[in-house]
This record gives sequence, C-alpha cells and structure tokens, in this order.
Amino acid sequence: MKIYNPTDIGDRNKLMILRLIKVYDGISRQEISKRMHLSAPAVSNNVAALIENGIVYENGCDDTSLGRKPRQLSYKGDLYYVISVELMPKKVRAGIADLYGEVQQWTEKEIIVENGVDEVLGQLDSAIDELLEKRKKDVDVIAIAVGVPALTGQNDLNDLFGTYLPEWKNVDLKEHILQKYNVEAIIVNDVELALIGERERGVGKKQTNIVYIKYGEGFAARAIVDGYLLKGNNMAAGELGYYLESLEEMTDEFVCPGRFEKKVCQNIFSECGEKNGLSDLILRAEQGDEAADAIVKKIIRKIAVVIANTVLMLNSEMVILGGDSEIFTEENIVEIKKILEKVCPFVPEVVTSKLGADAPIIGGIKVALDYAEEQIIMLWKS
Amino acid sequence: MKIYNPTDIGDRNKLMILRLIKVYDGISRQEISKRMHLSAPAVSNNVAALIENGIVYENGCDDTSLGRKPRQLSYKGDLYYVISVELMPKKVRAGIADLYGEVQQWTEKEIIVENGVDEVLGQLDSAIDELLEKRKKDVDVIAIAVGVPALTGQNDLNDLFGTYLPEWKNVDLKEHILQKYNVEAIIVNDVELALIGERERGVGKKQTNIVYIKYGEGFAARAIVDGYLLKGNNMAAGELGYYLESLEEMTDEFVCPGRFEKKVCQNIFSECGEKNGLSDLILRAEQGDEAADAIVKKIIRKIAVVIANTVLMLNSEMVILGGDSEIFTEENIVEIKKILEKVCPFVPEVVTSKLGADAPIIGGIKVALDYAEEQIIMLWKS
Repeated sequence: MKIYNPTDIGDRNKLMILRLIKVYDGISRQEISKRMHLSAPAVSNNVAALIENGIVYENGCDDTSLGRKPRQLSYKGDLYYVISVELMPKKVRAGIADLYGEVQQWTEKEIIVENGVDEVLGQLDSAIDELLEKRKKDVDVIAIAVGVPALTGQNDLNDLFGTYLPEWKNVDLKEHILQKYNVEAIIVNDVELALIGERERGVGKKQTNIVYIKYGEGFAARAIVDGYLLKGNNMAAGELGYYLESLEEMTDEFVCPGRFEKKVCQNIFSECGEKNGLSDLILRAEQGDEAADAIVKKIIRKIAVVIANTVLMLNSEMVILGGDSEIFTEENIVEIKKILEKVCPFVPEVVTSKLGADAPIIGGIKVALDYAEEQIIMLWKS
Repeated sequence: MKIYNPTDIGDRNKLMILRLIKVYDGISRQEISKRMHLSAPAVSNNVAALIENGIVYENGCDDTSLGRKPRQLSYKGDLYYVISVELMPKKVRAGIADLYGEVQQWTEKEIIVENGVDEVLGQLDSAIDELLEKRKKDVDVIAIAVGVPALTGQNDLNDLFGTYLPEWKNVDLKEHILQKYNVEAIIVNDVELALIGERERGVGKKQTNIVYIKYGEGFAARAIVDGYLLKGNNMAAGELGYYLESLEEMTDEFVCPGRFEKKVCQNIFSECGEKNGLSDLILRAEQGDEAADAIVKKIIRKIAVVIANTVLMLNSEMVILGGDSEIFTEENIVEIKKILEKVCPFVPEVVTSKLGADAPIIGGIKVALDYAEEQIIMLWKS
C-alpha cells in the first residue's frame, strides 16, 4: 500500500467530514454543510468519494424533515482492523481493534531478551499472527502501531532493548513489519502512547494540561500542554530519567541511562536486598518490614520532588502515575500530594493510571486509527 | 471602543488577508486568492472591507502581467499607534510603535514604590502621556499592552508589587487605563512578554522550542514549545521561583515568594555583603574578589541545575538568559553549558538576551499589534 499524506484542502475536508460522520452517526449532507461552512456541492463530492472508498454508507432517511428527506450517513467501523503492540524487554502485549477503536482481541507473549534479536522479533510476530488468526478473515489490517521503550528516531539513546541487546540497533522494526505483513507500522515511544491512551479512554479525558509519569524498568514522563502532546526539539520532551537531584550527583561525563533512573529503578532496590521490584517492596512494607517501608518512602519523596519541579514548569492540572507506580497505595499518593502542596502555587490532581498495562495499547490504537483514516480518505487517488 | 473577537470565518479570512498584505507589500487580489485557496469574489469582498476600514490601500499596478494589470495592495502601517509599557517596582519603561511594530519613541520614569499606589499609577500615566505628547497628533493609539511582574488573572500570587505594596491588590490596571485614555489595555506577565519580544526581534526567531529564564528581582521562566507559547492550566507555566532544590529545603507550609527565588535573588547576596545585586557582584569577581567570585559560581551552578532539569522536560533547542542574567560573562555561560552537557541527552544552545531591557516592550508591542489588527478588521461591523 502506498502512503499518502492528506495535505491539500479537499483531502483535509474529506477527513473532517469522515470524523463528523464517525461522531454523529446518521448525520445528513445538509448538516455537514452547515457545521463545516462548506458548500453543498463540495460536501456532496467529498461524501461521494468516501462512499466509493467504502468507509461511509447511506443509511435510510432522516425522519425529522418534511418533503424530500435527506439521507443519513454512517461510518463503516468494520471496514478494516488496526493492531497495536507494546514491545517490552520481558514481554510483548498486543490488541486488534475495529475502526471505532474497540479492541476485539488481546494477546501477550513472554520474551527472553537474552535469547537475542530473533527471539524478540519472533515473539512480536507470533503475537501479531495470533491476532490475525482470530480476526474475521475478510477484513484486512490497515495499520500497526508499535510502542517501544526508546526515543524513536534516535538510534542508540534511551533504547531499553539496546541496553540488553547490542545488536538491536541494527533492527529496522518498521521494515520488518512491512516485509512480513505488507502493512505500514508506526513506531512510537511507549510512554507517549500510554499518555495518549489515558487521554482517550482513561483518567485524563477532560484535562488539557497533564503530566504522565512512568516509573518501572525506566523513569520518564510525557505531557499534554494546553491541549497538545508536547514533543520537543528531538521528540524527547520528558526524559526525566536524566534528572539531576543535586550537584553532588554530578559526574565528569554524560551518563546513559540517567542518574535518577539508575537510582530509583535499580540501585535503591539493592539497598534493601529487594530483587522483584516495587510491588514486592510495597507488599513487604505493608506487612511491617521497616527497611522496606523506609525505601518505599524514599522513592515516593524522590519522585515527588521531580513531579513538583516539573509541574512548576508545565502548570499541569493532573499528574497520572503509570507503569509500576500504578500500584502506589492511597497513603503513597497522599505523601506525594503533601509535597506538591508545599511547593506548587497551583496543586494538580494526582491519580494513578486507569488503564494500567492497557494504556500504551489503547494509545497505539488511537495513533493507528488516525493514520488509518488518513490512508482511507486517500484511497480514491490510488 | 467596543471590543470584538473575530471568530466567524469571514473575519478570520479578513485577518489572514490583512497579514498577507502586511508581509507581501504590493500583493494582488489574484495572488491572495491563489495563496489562500479562496474564491476571487470572497477575496474582493474582504479586501473592499479592509480598504473601507482604511488599513489597506491600492497602490499602483503590478508590472509583471500583460493586458489589464492587477492593482497592488499595501498595508497602511501608520493608521494607528500602539503603546507598550513595562511596569516594574523601580521604574516604568514604555515605547510607542506604528502598526509595523517600529518603535517611534521610548521613555522611562523612576518609581519610588514606597510612596504608594498613586505614585506607581502616576508614573505609569506620565510615561504614557509623554508618548502621546510626542506622537503625530492626528493618529490615535488603538491598544496599550502592559507587562507586569505578576501572574495575570491571579489576585495575590506572585505579584511583585503586592509584596512591596499591600494596597496594590485593589488596583484594576485595565480599568484605570480605560478610564483615563479610553483605550483597551492588555495586561500580560512580563517574562512572557520578554520571550515574545526575543522571538519577534531577538535571538529566538527561528527556534520552535525555547526556554527563556528571567533572573533578577525574581526568578521565573517562560517557554515556547513546538512553536506555541506554553500557558499552563492557570497561565502560570514557568514559575520556577518555587523550584525545590532538595527535600532538606522543605518547610511545613507553602511559601511565597518561592524558596529558590528567595535564595538566588536575595539571601545569596547577603552571604557576601553585596547590596547592589548581580552586576556589582560580577564586577567584584572580575576584579579578583574571591568571595564574590565564589558566590557568582554558586549562583551559576544553582541556576544551571534548574535549567538542565527544565530542558529535560521540554527538550528545548535554545535557552535564553534574560533579566540580570544578560550580564553573565562568556565564562559563566560556558559553566552553564558544561553542566547541561553532563545532564541532558540533547544539549540546547545557551545565549543571553539580545534585546535586554527592551525585550518585554517589544513583546508587548507584538501583543498589542495582534490585538489591534483584530479590532481593525472588525471596524466595518461597528
């Protein structure tokens, strides 16, 4: 399939019309013309192209008007599927959804990253194969989004696979998927996808200023600012794993992964002999293990300072705690809030992720859908 | 004058046409039609309204075409003036500009804030009066922008005047100017204006991700992210005066002004008996005063850590040092860069402000001009 980029005005209009029909099922051409300040012939021509593409169909008549009744238009949400995959060092999770974004099937495969690149790609393929197997056979997949723990577009930096698997840097994931499935893949940072997911179907639906914090195997943030997803100059806005707590932490050279990430994701656990990570540590703390409790508190306070200083710059209304920090207890959240209250003139709401491990997949589906719709409206040109 | 907000499509088109004519002096109706994908009659009608408003005039013929020659359109930049004022605790600075944004006259008045609200407003008025006196008498002022060291829209918080002058909180600056001059005032945070100024005519013209740091009587930042001015949920994005250096700095309550601002703008100077602030301190350091040199270095390093952590979140391509930090030496800048290089995966350019004390005034003129153009295109409705 060729890739199109709808830049001309007619194509942008088609896309806007398609999205109107998707949201207002049964809308008429007249209503579209009124809402978009677009002439009746322009609407008619664009709708005709969408009907020819198969993505829109006429659906009976509108009952409210007298005389000749306008025909209602509907969105054909089952015309194609999209797939969303999150590729992590220990597993791959994936879902297949219709064009409404409703996930039809989920799957998950373990990865033993030590077995090398073929293992990782093999498990990725087997997750996609399983979803393709389970789909309605006459419906094609039009886009695949892949969430990765890396800065996309940057070769080495912050690639979590790269730290386990030096050969990973030679892998072209986009090309791999195109070769094997003949479908375009969109590769996106996993934290960015998690934030998009929460905004689409999770806790951050109404907010226009959100910081999403992912704490787990790595530490990073992504933000919605004034309604827009913050990207930054190198698509790297939010790489707080490099946060510098104080000048005493400074070394002579730049270090990667970052100092803060190394401390709160690795070193701090060895201080109390915890091998299984945050969930076991919190469990031990709740069972009365004082050493574990002290470490949990230390983690909470360190993260709270980073969040507070970030919120000062962004003036966010909501902080979403994702990754392992989803399992923070109510008491932990209160501790974070207390610090924010003492630092920030405007204190944001602090909540844990609603979608949990599904957040990046749901975010990937949204990204794949946006891409799919752009492709669909361009079909008439091909 | 009534205030209009051009929201309908015809008005947005007028504004776009006006700005095209301003940038491409001598453009024809045909060229506008081509550039905007707008029908010839729509362009003609909108241009007719702009000519009726007096802001556009016909200016001879275009020589390049054969046959009937299209008439060229020009922007009447001297139709009105705008005024921009920066109100500071110790002085007020102001400029008057034509509609091209060219400043025609500058003025500056001292303020003795201890003399109270009447003194402050009196000096503000006398600056405006002087500019009105010097203008061409048949040309009116259509908008006044006022930069203030405060969070606009927030009553008490971060109002530098409020800290000197408790009665200041009862002052309605917008109303004061409207009553006295019958001109609409736009009140904007001074750091925001400085950033807008630098972007308009200073060092940050080409960059889409910029952090502007103001260090002086206060400490604050403002940012351009992905091309947009970051506002935040309460128009307070960038209030880094509240930055928390470490948990040891924490007190039981929220404090205002912020802990970091108090330290780097006040306390740190008393440590070495410096009463005149940064410029004298840097001078003493350059003359070999080791105590002064140590404090300068300490300030530089503290600020560098804040900048580094902010750049991680925003992934900025440029850091502009404004306010008193304009006078940092080349050696000081190198020290900041060194710290950024050890912390940030993507190291931004670090530059001092180009416009210096003019930056907020130039920014205010830009804001006043945008507002003025919106008013002018609506004149045909009044």
